[in-house]
Amino acid sequence: MQDSMTYSGSLTIDLKALEDNYRLLQSVAVQNCAIAGVIKANAYGLGAIQVFDRLITIGCPQFFVATLDEALALRDHHHNANIAVLGGLFTGAENTYAAHNITPVLNTPQDIQTWAAMAKSVQRKLPAFIHFDTGMNRLGLSADEAKALIDDQSILEGIDVQAIMSHFACADDHTHALTQSQADQFAAISAHFPTIKKSLANSSGLFLDKAYHYDMARPGYALYGGNPTPHLNNPMKPVAHLKTRVLQIRVCKKGESIGYGASYGFDKDTRTATVALGYADGFLRSHSSYPHKPNAKLFFEDTPCDVIGRVSMDLVTVDISHIPQLKQGDWLEVLGFNQGVDDLAETSGTIGYEILTSLGARYKRAYI
Amino acid sequence: MQDSMTYSGSLTIDLKALEDNYRLLQSVAVQNCAIAGVIKANAYGLGAIQVFDRLITIGCPQFFVATLDEALALRDHHHNANIAVLGGLFTGAENTYAAHNITPVLNTPQDIQTWAAMAKSVQRKLPAFIHFDTGMNRLGLSADEAKALIDDQSILEGIDVQAIMSHFACADDHTHALTQSQADQFAAISAHFPTIKKSLANSSGLFLDKAYHYDMARPGYALYGGNPTPHLNNPMKPVAHLKTRVLQIRVCKKGESIGYGASYGFDKDTRTATVALGYADGFLRSHSSYPHKPNAKLFFEDTPCDVIGRVSMDLVTVDISHIPQLKQGDWLEVLGFNQGVDDLAETSGTIGYEILTSLGARYKRAYI
Repeated sequence: MQDSMTYSGSLTIDLKALEDNYRLLQSVAVQNCAIAGVIKANAYGLGAIQVFDRLITIGCPQFFVATLDEALALRDHHHNANIAVLGGLFTGAENTYAAHNITPVLNTPQDIQTWAAMAKSVQRKLPAFIHFDTGMNRLGLSADEAKALIDDQSILEGIDVQAIMSHFACADDHTHALTQSQADQFAAISAHFPTIKKSLANSSGLFLDKAYHYDMARPGYALYGGNPTPHLNNPMKPVAHLKTRVLQIRVCKKGESIGYGASYGFDKDTRTATVALGYADGFLRSHSSYPHKPNAKLFFEDTPCDVIGRVSMDLVTVDISHIPQLKQGDWLEVLGFNQGVDDLAETSGTIGYEILTSLGARYKRAYI
Repeated sequence: MQDSMTYSGSLTIDLKALEDNYRLLQSVAVQNCAIAGVIKANAYGLGAIQVFDRLITIGCPQFFVATLDEALALRDHHHNANIAVLGGLFTGAENTYAAHNITPVLNTPQDIQTWAAMAKSVQRKLPAFIHFDTGMNRLGLSADEAKALIDDQSILEGIDVQAIMSHFACADDHTHALTQSQADQFAAISAHFPTIKKSLANSSGLFLDKAYHYDMARPGYALYGGNPTPHLNNPMKPVAHLKTRVLQIRVCKKGESIGYGASYGFDKDTRTATVALGYADGFLRSHSSYPHKPNAKLFFEDTPCDVIGRVSMDLVTVDISHIPQLKQGDWLEVLGFNQGVDDLAETSGTIGYEILTSLGARYKRAYI
């Protein structure tokens, strides 16, 4: 690391690990199951363009984002890649999808009608995914809407259906009954579309049952090093490596408190480090220490240090009583080999996905 | 609002409200108390450059940021403004501070020595603030270090001290005893520096006691519409106005669940809206609904809608059973006149500061 620091933290994104993760998912999938790349939310905070480029290089055939804006940014960067928008056909924007060759995921009968009409008006087939809800109750055709579509598929005329799809609500919990119920519903719907491809599995779904693989899986989290099998060891490699630096070391005295709200009191003299990392950097305020909650941790080399007191906007304080050699200017690991995104999330009641998407704009970012 | 939507949410930042807030703080402050602008963390998520420009226009004499990178970005934009870095003299970067006329807040004896040596080497006085810790235990000289400096001020030779300062830990709680204790300690230190200016109050400190005002106050949160007087009505105007759009409306049936983890079950048929807003947009996952927790809310015109189920990365679902006229494509207010940053934070165990700094990159931003 360079000695002259103008930044508050250093985020290294390991694109080789991303590539290895993609290949691992390919090896898990049944033959003929394509592995799409879900790169919404700036590739889960890690940089959509860089991830997109790397996945294209290794043959990823299909990309999914959440919003039309995200798709347009990728389209500006690459003219041929297949880019689909999970959020559906944004109201009034159908011309933009068609003009930029962006594939909507059609979630509603209204979406389907609008896109079919668009195809008619441009006198060519237009690509789309059709999303059936099977229990998530978020996006996609309801059971009644699915039945209507199954009974009269003429509404799809003009639409080049890339695949029909659904999305699991509980695939990260391998014991949850809803997953098989969703799969059963999807299989029943699929039977009515024998010539059309199917897509069901997310990251966790790939590891649950090969019957969920179909023609295309849509992993996101596992690509970025998140654990798709929370009940087992993480088979993925960490992609995000985050370090930050010690701004000041102090000895807090017995009876004193630390941080906003004076929420943490010292029952003995304690050596602490104040570190350049706060909730404005995406180190969530819920990583603050509270009674009866596990402490979030930073690592000096392989040694964990407990976060104490409240996380503030730009700073966090850790107990370093057990690391006498630590000094101002030293680096602490936030994410990496000692602590993955799932580990950090677990101390604070959230999920690694939010750890990733919260990664802040002040870090110096490097891609390796 | 335009009808063709390529984005997932619309964030309008009211710079006139910011200006009014600045002037209100000026009117609260004692005469000769300058009002600095704390614009760290991208001006609490609202856009450092735009806020900087507006505050310069209305005469703000001093700016504070957290990191050297933040200071350099402002310096690139404006050559004369007074810019100070709260995070201190980043290790090894003293040349960069001097070369770009950035003022460090010196937090440690080591910082002071380094900066004094720098002044000697460039043969001119260099500006700095000196930060004394009085109970926050985060940054600043400890009581022992303060005593050493008071006893031998020759170490400050070469440093043009803009002000000595300290920072309140509990000023948002008007009943907390630590505040007066900190003020007393600061007054005792101040007595040893009769010819140097003093700065103590943050946003809340300005409203607590005129004795805390001294020569310069350093508000941040109140500028952006946060309530500096949580026990009273908010005297500030909202600066952030955030709306997002309904992607799909559905009727979830009794016995079904919604969202990841199937965490929210319906005990009756319920009309819901799926909205383009998720934790990747900074709508924190802790805004999810849980038993015994108040529901986070979005507003259709003046009518609140409860968030139900888990917030996901790009989407959130709300109960709209009571708003039969709501349709796909309609807008819901997240922040604005119906719900300020403090209101939204309160439902989810955090503070409005984190609501602001989490505001995401996918919103279409407009400044008025």
